[in-house]
Amino acid sequence: MAPCASLLLPVFVILATLPIIQSVPTFFPRPSYDQSLAKQPKASKPKIPYKTHYFPQVLDHFTFQPKSSKIFYQKYLVNSNYWHRGAPIFVYTGNEGDIEWFAANTGFLLDIAPKFRALLVFIEHRFYGESMPFGNNSYKSAETLGYLNSQQALADFALLIRSLKHNLSSEASPVVVFGGSYGGNGGTAVLIFLSPVKLVSLFLVFNEKVFSSLSLSVLAAWFRLKYPHIAIGALASSAPILQFDDITPWSSFYDAVSQDFKEASLNCYEVIKGSWAELEALSAQKEGLAELSRTFRACQDLHSLDSVWEWLWSAFVYTAMVNYPTDANFMMPLPAYPVQAMCKIIDGFPSGASKITRVFAAASLYYNYSRAEKCFKLEHGPDAHGLHGWDWQACTEMVMPMTCSEESMFPTSSFSYKEFAEDCMRTFGVKPRPHWITTEFGGKRIELVLKRSGGNIIFSNGMQDPWSRGGVLKNISSSIIALVTEKGAHHVDFRSATKDDPEWLKELRRQEVEIIQGWINQYYPDLKRTNKE
Amino acid sequence: MAPCASLLLPVFVILATLPIIQSVPTFFPRPSYDQSLAKQPKASKPKIPYKTHYFPQVLDHFTFQPKSSKIFYQKYLVNSNYWHRGAPIFVYTGNEGDIEWFAANTGFLLDIAPKFRALLVFIEHRFYGESMPFGNNSYKSAETLGYLNSQQALADFALLIRSLKHNLSSEASPVVVFGGSYGGNGGTAVLIFLSPVKLVSLFLVFNEKVFSSLSLSVLAAWFRLKYPHIAIGALASSAPILQFDDITPWSSFYDAVSQDFKEASLNCYEVIKGSWAELEALSAQKEGLAELSRTFRACQDLHSLDSVWEWLWSAFVYTAMVNYPTDANFMMPLPAYPVQAMCKIIDGFPSGASKITRVFAAASLYYNYSRAEKCFKLEHGPDAHGLHGWDWQACTEMVMPMTCSEESMFPTSSFSYKEFAEDCMRTFGVKPRPHWITTEFGGKRIELVLKRSGGNIIFSNGMQDPWSRGGVLKNISSSIIALVTEKGAHHVDFRSATKDDPEWLKELRRQEVEIIQGWINQYYPDLKRTNKE
Repeated sequence: MAPCASLLLPVFVILATLPIIQSVPTFFPRPSYDQSLAKQPKASKPKIPYKTHYFPQVLDHFTFQPKSSKIFYQKYLVNSNYWHRGAPIFVYTGNEGDIEWFAANTGFLLDIAPKFRALLVFIEHRFYGESMPFGNNSYKSAETLGYLNSQQALADFALLIRSLKHNLSSEASPVVVFGGSYGGNGGTAVLIFLSPVKLVSLFLVFNEKVFSSLSLSVLAAWFRLKYPHIAIGALASSAPILQFDDITPWSSFYDAVSQDFKEASLNCYEVIKGSWAELEALSAQKEGLAELSRTFRACQDLHSLDSVWEWLWSAFVYTAMVNYPTDANFMMPLPAYPVQAMCKIIDGFPSGASKITRVFAAASLYYNYSRAEKCFKLEHGPDAHGLHGWDWQACTEMVMPMTCSEESMFPTSSFSYKEFAEDCMRTFGVKPRPHWITTEFGGKRIELVLKRSGGNIIFSNGMQDPWSRGGVLKNISSSIIALVTEKGAHHVDFRSATKDDPEWLKELRRQEVEIIQGWINQYYPDLKRTNKE
Repeated sequence: MAPCASLLLPVFVILATLPIIQSVPTFFPRPSYDQSLAKQPKASKPKIPYKTHYFPQVLDHFTFQPKSSKIFYQKYLVNSNYWHRGAPIFVYTGNEGDIEWFAANTGFLLDIAPKFRALLVFIEHRFYGESMPFGNNSYKSAETLGYLNSQQALADFALLIRSLKHNLSSEASPVVVFGGSYGGNGGTAVLIFLSPVKLVSLFLVFNEKVFSSLSLSVLAAWFRLKYPHIAIGALASSAPILQFDDITPWSSFYDAVSQDFKEASLNCYEVIKGSWAELEALSAQKEGLAELSRTFRACQDLHSLDSVWEWLWSAFVYTAMVNYPTDANFMMPLPAYPVQAMCKIIDGFPSGASKITRVFAAASLYYNYSRAEKCFKLEHGPDAHGLHGWDWQACTEMVMPMTCSEESMFPTSSFSYKEFAEDCMRTFGVKPRPHWITTEFGGKRIELVLKRSGGNIIFSNGMQDPWSRGGVLKNISSSIIALVTEKGAHHVDFRSATKDDPEWLKELRRQEVEIIQGWINQYYPDLKRTNKE
């Protein structure tokens, strides 16, 4: 069975055998986009101190055909509680998902808004949430989805911000953009059955809330680089802008996940590493799947080992990402330092316990911390429908090859551009442009490039977060700063401050605020001098 | 009759009454794109030391529809006579017209290539020359023309340069982009009849060679700003990047033309200023047009005064642009300091001579310096066809409002965004996006913005050139430099060096070379340090 996913995200998607697609599974299955289909209660919209607005956005910024100027309504949220005209504007560059979830889970901005008298603006990303260029038909095909890409999204932000400042009569306000995570309000794991395809094909999809974190953070950095006349600076938290082409070793992501577990406990790492083979051996036995169904408390009998692998895989990868120092409910409710908690579970069994038993118990921490779940939905039937925007983006421009090395705790796997392209063609009818991102935005030798251009960017990364390996981890210039925390995880800085925050987290936020204050302190005198000339 | 053109370019286009368009003339007539129709001999392709290549270019860089990946062949020229692997690459970002004309008329690059051991690359702009995405149907409608815009062109350059460096195994070569003029090899004035439309509507089109100069130079600056990871620096000569929105006063262009003539001779300026009314008065008389036909040696009897106005207008505007210190043949063969020469002609008549007589004689310098022309084609019949790419670009994104003030030597006129948009809709079926360029590229408070981002750009401007008023005329930072020459004209620095060049021109080129050398001297050690890390 194909081992480790060799694709860009640890958010794997499995292709359901839908009538509208080939029955042979592919790289990019169609996850359940519709939360209702996942039979999970759609979490009620959080109560957040923002007003909702809609901006008439241009469909295609980069061609001038008659249809290019079609208007769709892009949602954005505003908090003006602390603001006055002329004061800074903090813009959160939205990503895949309902913008309310982002706003609800980026308490950091609410924490610092008073100090800066900042206007807070959260802009929903096109093709997500309510911001659908073609209404319910937005995901119909490559014809409609074709307009979903990062350059169109950045231009959306540029137009919206400019228009907003004009309408608020506050064109002199400095704008700072933020790319951070989006704390889910109970992420829903949606797993869809996939028959194995040779050389890797196990993917697991989480709901869009998880994807968001990735795209958002890179967008803020790219926005400052491409639109320095609109944003005076950017805070890009956990932004893997170097996870393209061969800038970052392809194995680094899964090596980092493995390192998190290994550092918690060598035994823990070894148990997980050895569990895949044990699972495979069991599934090959007569009644093996039945036993697995019992062991894993599957709501319905399992048909294949794939879903078990995916279920475990996701738990470990996501837990590494959200290895926060305090109790949190980012994607799932978890205790503080959940990687350590998982390893404690694994290590806590009597010495005769099987690896399968141990890893199931550990993963259950991720899925069932509340102990409310009676069974787990490891498999979904073939009625899942809908394409996820991130899958599209992954198949077009956001191509991030990933492999699993011998040192990782996952089964080894490789990545093939050719097979990847074939799968994307099969699924979406499009060919990826795997080197487009580095042509459009750069990345190679970034320290050389940005030393002589660009400025006012903070790249923050927590080393628990596997995405950090694709990030900027060293200062590039006096105004392009890398803030690295050994114990930080994915966008930890963007969470609301709590009384239990460790000192290093408080210090990280303090430094970010100080740097941003510096940009703003520089801006107003610059502006004054310019106005005089 | 509507006076001064209130539109962006001094290159005016007049709508021919074509069967496929409305018979009521509009802002944007359809000039004769086909040189053969203009009954001018198409100048034979110059002999230039470049090899021709074709690059398989992507049609649409910013959407991912199936048709977006359509390939067309983009022409580019290469001179590798002085180059070795690893040495710098100088790229000339092409613009509207056959790339050979550019290469033939940018002798500056050939002059400096040996010193830098530079590879010279001239890239043809999409939708011009041979680089037609839809072959002969490229100009058919907004459906095809929609792909003609500056962001697509910049992305073309990015992809091509990256690919070229890869194929030459010279990925470490520093790339410098150049935006300069394109010396025409005898620009052809093509005039097409236009019935007046209220509030301005006289336009005159020159062949594409003239338009080119404008677009090219801004593209180099924008390329360095958007793709600093591909070009380490840019020399943008006569680049009016501030001629958008209300950054530059709308009257500045025609005020600058007028200032050139006024400085040559106050009387000259006053004669030209007074000639329009005299012409109008004459044309209103019985047999007035017949007399004008004789005075202006029109090849065919004139039907309206418009073409006479346009003929004169163009001569004065273009002569100001190319007011070079030496004999030149940029758009038309002219003596050194042709503005002064024209004014000498105007002032040289006996005191009783009419203004009409004087201005005709002066303008003849532009059209007939060689004295070979027996008559002048002031009007063309309604059989002109074809759309010019620049007209399209002017109607979509390159919106540069221009007006004529009371102080100018042209009849006063205004600009109306509303009327402009209506005309563009009538002509091309598209609505302009008049503020898109400043959203996408910036421009407002550029000194504030680029002080904290960007770097390694030279903006050179000659103050004889009316386009200079929309350029960057002051240093912005230690590496964004403005080189201004009082006596310089349009892209004077890009012409080949001659023994007659004045000292200020030699000094201008010397400084440019020194600054570029500085970028390159910085680059190689930077690269070495990066490779070590």
